[in-house]
Parts: sequence; C-alpha cells; structure tokens
Amino acid sequence: MPFKHYLMTPGPTPVPRRVALAMAQPLPHHRSPSFERIFAECRQGLKWIFGTLQEVLVQSSSGTGALEAALVNMCRQDDEVIYVNGGKFGERWGQIASAYGLKTHEIRVPWGEAVDPALVRRALSDAPSAAALCVQACESSTGIAHPIRELAELTRHSDTCLVVDAVSALGAMPLPMDEWGIDVLLTASQKALMLPPGLAFSAASPKAWSRIEHADLPRFAFDWRAELATQRHDRARWTPAISLIMGLAEVLRWLREETLDSVYARHDRLARAARAAMEAMGLTLFAKVPAASITTVNCPVDSELLVELLRDSYGVGLVGGQDAAKGKIFRIAHLGYFDDFDIVVAVAAIERGLAELGHQAVPFGTGVGAALKVFSA
Amino acid sequence: MPFKHYLMTPGPTPVPRRVALAMAQPLPHHRSPSFERIFAECRQGLKWIFGTLQEVLVQSSSGTGALEAALVNMCRQDDEVIYVNGGKFGERWGQIASAYGLKTHEIRVPWGEAVDPALVRRALSDAPSAAALCVQACESSTGIAHPIRELAELTRHSDTCLVVDAVSALGAMPLPMDEWGIDVLLTASQKALMLPPGLAFSAASPKAWSRIEHADLPRFAFDWRAELATQRHDRARWTPAISLIMGLAEVLRWLREETLDSVYARHDRLARAARAAMEAMGLTLFAKVPAASITTVNCPVDSELLVELLRDSYGVGLVGGQDAAKGKIFRIAHLGYFDDFDIVVAVAAIERGLAELGHQAVPFGTGVGAALKVFSA
Repeated sequence: MPFKHYLMTPGPTPVPRRVALAMAQPLPHHRSPSFERIFAECRQGLKWIFGTLQEVLVQSSSGTGALEAALVNMCRQDDEVIYVNGGKFGERWGQIASAYGLKTHEIRVPWGEAVDPALVRRALSDAPSAAALCVQACESSTGIAHPIRELAELTRHSDTCLVVDAVSALGAMPLPMDEWGIDVLLTASQKALMLPPGLAFSAASPKAWSRIEHADLPRFAFDWRAELATQRHDRARWTPAISLIMGLAEVLRWLREETLDSVYARHDRLARAARAAMEAMGLTLFAKVPAASITTVNCPVDSELLVELLRDSYGVGLVGGQDAAKGKIFRIAHLGYFDDFDIVVAVAAIERGLAELGHQAVPFGTGVGAALKVFSA
Repeated sequence: MPFKHYLMTPGPTPVPRRVALAMAQPLPHHRSPSFERIFAECRQGLKWIFGTLQEVLVQSSSGTGALEAALVNMCRQDDEVIYVNGGKFGERWGQIASAYGLKTHEIRVPWGEAVDPALVRRALSDAPSAAALCVQACESSTGIAHPIRELAELTRHSDTCLVVDAVSALGAMPLPMDEWGIDVLLTASQKALMLPPGLAFSAASPKAWSRIEHADLPRFAFDWRAELATQRHDRARWTPAISLIMGLAEVLRWLREETLDSVYARHDRLARAARAAMEAMGLTLFAKVPAASITTVNCPVDSELLVELLRDSYGVGLVGGQDAAKGKIFRIAHLGYFDDFDIVVAVAAIERGLAELGHQAVPFGTGVGAALKVFSA
C-alpha cells in the first residue's frame, strides 16, 4: 500500500475534504452576481476573524507578497521602519524594507525568544517618526509568540503603526485587531484558514490608512487604496484566485459552526498536549514563549535525519529547523485542520523515529500517554 | 432544476473535472521530494508550451502581477518603454510603467484593430534606447491578435526587448518564443491552461536577461533573478500556490496527450465556426484581425442586456464590452477547455437571446447551422 501521508507542517496545512471539494466546483466568473455573493460572505467572515470593522483586503499572492504590500502601501520613500528580528520571518521585514530603500532599525532577538517590550519601547523613542513597527505574532521559524497586545499598548500613543504578520497565528490564537489596537494585520490562506496557499489577507486601522493615503512607494498590482475602493463592491481589481476564494467561503462557514472560542481552545489544547508529550519524553522546548500553532523541540539527534526518516519511512511530514537551527530542532504543527489524534500520530512517529535513530530515553508510549492525559483532563 | 452553468468567458475558463480533482488531492509540502517532482514536470511542460529553452518562472499572482513583474525586473529607473495600446490590456502597460516612473511612448491603436508594424518601426527608431516594446498577443478586450512574429523581426536587431502579454493567447495559438525571437513571454493560469486563476508564468530570452541583470526598480516577492536561482532546483522562493501547480501538472499531461498542434487546430476550428455562425446571422465582427481565442461581435441590441439575459435566463456566461465598447459588443470565448458543442451552445443561446430581445434577422438554427458546417468540413 502506498503511504498514507500525514501533512503536519506549519504551512501548507491539511485542507479538509469538504473545502477541497468546494474548490473543485465549477468556477463562477469574477464579475458575476454569484461570485459577488461569495466575496461578500468572505468579506464579512474575514472581518469577524480579524476582529475589525475595517475591510480585510484579499490578495492573490504568497504571504510574503502581503508583507511587501503592507510596507509599500504604508511608506514614503524617506520613511524609517523598526522591525523585530527573532527568526526567518522577522529577518524578512528587513529584507523587504531594504529592497525599497527604507531606513531600518532592527531589534534583534535571539532565536527561540520573544521580544522584550522594553527594547521596543526604547526603539520607538529612538525613532519616534518611524512609520511602522513590524513584528510576527508567531515567528514560524522558532515557534515563539511575540507579545502583540503589549506592543500595541506601546504604539497606541505614538505615530508609529504596529504591523503584525500573523501568517501562522491568525485563526489559531486571539488577535482582536480593533480591541488591541493593531494597525496592520495580515495573514495567508495556507495556515489556520485550512486552505491551499495562494491568497493573503490584510486589514489596516484608520491610523494606518492615514499613512496609506500619503504613501509614495511604487506599486501597481496590489495598491490598497484602489483595492479598497473595488473590494467594497465585492469585486477584486484583477482576476482573483477564484477557486481559493470559494474554499475560503466554505472555511468561514466551518469556523462559524465551530465558533472562534472553540477554535482557539482547540489550538491551545493541542499545543499543551504536544508540549506535555515532548517533556514527558525528556525533550526540551526550543521556544521560550511557545505559540499555540507550533511546538518547536530541541532534537537529541540530527533533526534533519529525523524529519527525513519520518517522511520517507512513515509518511509523516514534520519540518526541521532553518539556518542556525538546522539539524538542531524539529517543529510539530497544530495549526488549522488538526485534532487530538493528529497529535497522537505526530508524537507516536517521533517516539518511533527517535528510537530508530538510537535515541530512546523513555519507554514507547510515554509521549503519547502524556498527550492523552491532557486530552482527558 | 437549478441552471446548468456554461462558463464561456475568456478567463476564467472552464476547468476540466479531471484537473479540478487533481487539485482536490491532499497537498504535498512545497519543500518535499514529491512536490519537487511535480514542479520539475511543470517546468519541462511550460518550456514545451512556451517553445523555449529558457526557464519559465512560476509566480503566484494574477496575470497583472506578471505584467508588473516583467517591467520591474527588466527596467532601470530612467528607462523608456514603448507600448501598444489597442484596448484595456494595452492601456495597462502604460499604467504600470507610469506607476514606476518610467518614461512611456504610447502607440495608440483604434479598438478592434491590430497594430500596424510600420508604426512600431517608427517608434523603435524614435526611441532606440527603449528597454521594452510591450504588446498583447491577443488583446482580450477587443479580440484582436497583434502581429507578434512581425514585431519580433523589428526588435530582433534593436536593443529593445519584445515583451508579450500572452495571457489570453498562449496555448491557443502558436507563439514559439525562441523561434520567433520573443524576449519576454508571459501568461496566466485561467485561460488556455484550463486552471483557476492564481498563477502566472514568465520566460525571458538571453537578451532580456542581460537587462534583468542590471535592473534597479524596487521589488521583493517576485524578483526574477532570485526566483530563477531557486526554481532551477524545483522550488519556489515563497510558499507557492501548491494546489494550482498540482492542477498544472495534470493540464500539461492532458495537453501532451492532445498534442500542441491539435490544440491549436481545435482553437482555430472553434474560432472559424464562431465567426461563420455570427456572419450567417448577419452580424459583423468587431475585431479586424480576430484571435483564435475570442470572437468579438458587434451587437445589434444593447450587449449588456444580451449578456444579462443569457446569464440570468439560460445560465450561459458570455462577456460584453468594456469602456467605449460597453453595450456595443459581446465576446464569445473559445479558449481552453472548449469543444465543438460548446460553440453550438453559445451560438444557440445568442440566437435565442437576440430573438427574445426583438432582433431576429434570420430563422432559428441559421447560426448553429453555419457552425456545424465548419465542423463537418
């Protein structure tokens, strides 16, 4: 029998069959009443998940495309940008800002740690005219959660906008944009939203919109001012990724059935179970402040070998580490369409794989048992 | 019974069920051997359809995103660009170039006409250092085909690169990039490639690459130099639209079964049948040099009314005209997954709709009969 494949990576994440088949339906034209009804439903649902009264703009691109769009739509050519670099995605803010000639202030954070708000407070006072403070809600490369709510308290009374990449966070943990005072919140389709990659979503606060009105960096395909004027009428300016939007409508119906509180509670429960399992196996967590979406673990053997073994011998797809963390960590995703028994499978595969690689510190079942204990609590 | 829906628009075009279900399969991770095998297959197939030995870069975006990427990857800030404006898409070249501060030379062509190569020759000699001559292979808003092969003869011995938007042409008519000397050829997924929207594809000649090496317009998410270095290894830099790429692999298998010659012959046959049907009904064609992908027809009644009637009463989706052509023309697509009987349906719906709107110049069946005659020849 060919493998059953278990996709347990933090993006792409598994697409429910119900959603996959919604996307397999015949396409409506993007300038038709039937598409406009679907788009209107998506607009409402996205506002609900973002916790905002603002429009959530839909962009046909990768998440990186949305990070780029956020900066080019907010900034003027002489603007300064502060960014938190605690991993691959934090680093990307700096790369994008530099590509557009913006002056950058980096707040460097050791991999595996969350940013200290005191450092952010100092950066904001050192660069009081900075256009943006850019940060990840969850830094996917390390699995940590930055303290977004506290950062929003710092930017609230400044001229600087808080720009949050919530690609691997939104829909997995509460990030109520308006309530917390996040100025730009963005995410992508292939994470907690249970869709294939290809769509990104962004919303901006009135404070951010006042910058967007005066931005002068060059852009065309994704210009937020023009897109806002069009999407308000349930249309996109260019032919959008229609099938993914059909899937999004189905996902939003699903999430409304589950309710957001239950969705967040599920992610929290899976995260606690994964952490308990790893600790019961004598392993240590890499992330000092772990996010609800990813559990990052220090690997007692070469983690590249473990990831390959799980993938090639058992059909279980985890991811390892990047850059300096390569070979040192592995990451268990519980982001999107994951339930308790997915964690059982992931932990069981890790128990088996470590044993096969010569590292068996505890009896088989120890990790799985710890997870089950969390589920039964 | 709810309507059967007949999507007969020039993008999105119908997605074969075989392709839709290929996209509904579980997703592989984009950094896994199984995805890399799919991507390698796509790279080979795209080179075959483009008729090029160069890499065809895959971009997760709308077609407009690929037009923008072509200019920002080729141009320096002080570059001049010549563009052919014979419709909405020709106009877009100018809008994109202006958004990036490039100096533009517009060759204006009346809607419904193809560009006269003599005008292009003059523009090239007036602006001999122009970086690019931008043109559509098929201008979707009018249905004409510009003379790409002749234009390539003009740019071949100049410093100017021929940049061809083949979004509604590639895969419907021959555009052998290397043989003709096209410098940049680009298309999108939702046309002859029978996929949903969300992917775009671009290739550049060695002459274009020598410009790309020195381009200095700001860009990040879609930087061709970086993308080339990555995609050569069967990976994309950012998480790509995986499900659409899985669909692309299936489409390419399909097209290899049909063979490109048969695909082009089919499009040509459908175009001839549609034109014969319209002429038999006493209607005139709007496009002086009609493309194989779209038949554009002067409408004897308000074409907006006709399009709405066909959509709302029969479930048949055609498109009308844009801008000055709004209300005056309608467009029949035969682009991608269309066969003879699709044309029969489109013509029958038009016969019926025109009669219902009070315009019946010929007996029922006249248009369909003319189409059948072409098919039986």
